[in-house]
Amino acid sequence: MVKKAVVLLSGGLDSATTLYVALERGYNVLCLLFDYGQRHRKELLKAKQIAKDAGCEYKMIRFGLPWGGSSLVDKKIKIPEKRGLKEISKKIPSTYVPARNTIFVAFAVSCAEAIGAKAIFIGANAVDFSGYPDCRPEYYRVYNELIRKGTKRKDIKIVAPLIRKSKAEIIKIGKKLGVPYHKTWSCYKGGKKPCRVCDSCAIRARGFKEAEEEDYLID
Amino acid sequence: MVKKAVVLLSGGLDSATTLYVALERGYNVLCLLFDYGQRHRKELLKAKQIAKDAGCEYKMIRFGLPWGGSSLVDKKIKIPEKRGLKEISKKIPSTYVPARNTIFVAFAVSCAEAIGAKAIFIGANAVDFSGYPDCRPEYYRVYNELIRKGTKRKDIKIVAPLIRKSKAEIIKIGKKLGVPYHKTWSCYKGGKKPCRVCDSCAIRARGFKEAEEEDYLID
Repeated sequence: MVKKAVVLLSGGLDSATTLYVALERGYNVLCLLFDYGQRHRKELLKAKQIAKDAGCEYKMIRFGLPWGGSSLVDKKIKIPEKRGLKEISKKIPSTYVPARNTIFVAFAVSCAEAIGAKAIFIGANAVDFSGYPDCRPEYYRVYNELIRKGTKRKDIKIVAPLIRKSKAEIIKIGKKLGVPYHKTWSCYKGGKKPCRVCDSCAIRARGFKEAEEEDYLID
Repeated sequence: MVKKAVVLLSGGLDSATTLYVALERGYNVLCLLFDYGQRHRKELLKAKQIAKDAGCEYKMIRFGLPWGGSSLVDKKIKIPEKRGLKEISKKIPSTYVPARNTIFVAFAVSCAEAIGAKAIFIGANAVDFSGYPDCRPEYYRVYNELIRKGTKRKDIKIVAPLIRKSKAEIIKIGKKLGVPYHKTWSCYKGGKKPCRVCDSCAIRARGFKEAEEEDYLID
């Protein structure tokens, strides 16, 4: 029997690795992409390419968040720059989008219920994260309970295979699986080239350094 | 201090009553409307009018659910008709939209967190419902826990004031509060006039009958 899964694919390093983990586990994958007015919409082009390369179908969901509240969707708020990794993890930064993962996973639950998928894969990561509350294991534990209570089917589960991994560990896993990291996009700014000063660029750089791998991007 | 609330407003009877309950409790209300490709998009015109009449700001969120899975968004699936009230409550009907309330509330959480609202009002109702799993008290209990785990703020709560009321009780509450029921829309079909044969029309008709109130609509 075909095992179906929904994979949340942002076009970044973590979600691309998660996609490859799901494929390795034998799932037939539908990728979900979200266009929510993010500054770095460029990641969506990358996500499409990554899905196609992996031979997966994808669906794009579009919506706006007209209340802003994050530097990732509101250009009037500055993206934090040049922060050390200790500083990054100290408090929730302005790049946090209120309840973003709650929205993403809600769409994935709807999709999984409709297409008969039993797993929702998400690249959430609680180690090298920027203090986002919706990236922690206990959050997904409760979300799984919510799915059991709120859907017709009781057999859909969120799987977050990278949640307790460091960025370097993630990269090592992905390298073994053949993840095309040169096609992923992490920079919050979405310029022509990665800015190398935002938190996401900083975390990525340290990850590659610690994994002793080279990070090159093809635009 | 101003108490802010987000109210999920569909344009139907329950959500309109919920809006008036929130206002009576002294909240400064922002209404959230959802255009998700529902057949009865007409309800949105009603919702806008209801929000304006009540002097409330509203925001419209637009998205598609490209996986269908419900007669409410997929015109190829027939809306159930002429079912007795016993039959309606027996099993989850095709009008159930997978994880719809999970998505709606997720947007409301994002909005509440961004604007500093402490309450999310929803007109969910577990008595005269059509067996939808996302209308039950235990579902909202878990969702409240999810909000505590997944947001920066810990003080946002879902309030479902009608969850244990019958349709007749809801109408009696609303009548006292001055809810303009003649401007609400319940029919799943969204035609010029209510069809009077879908589950939603049937439940509404019995509610007005039991409440001993007259139901008239102004188009």
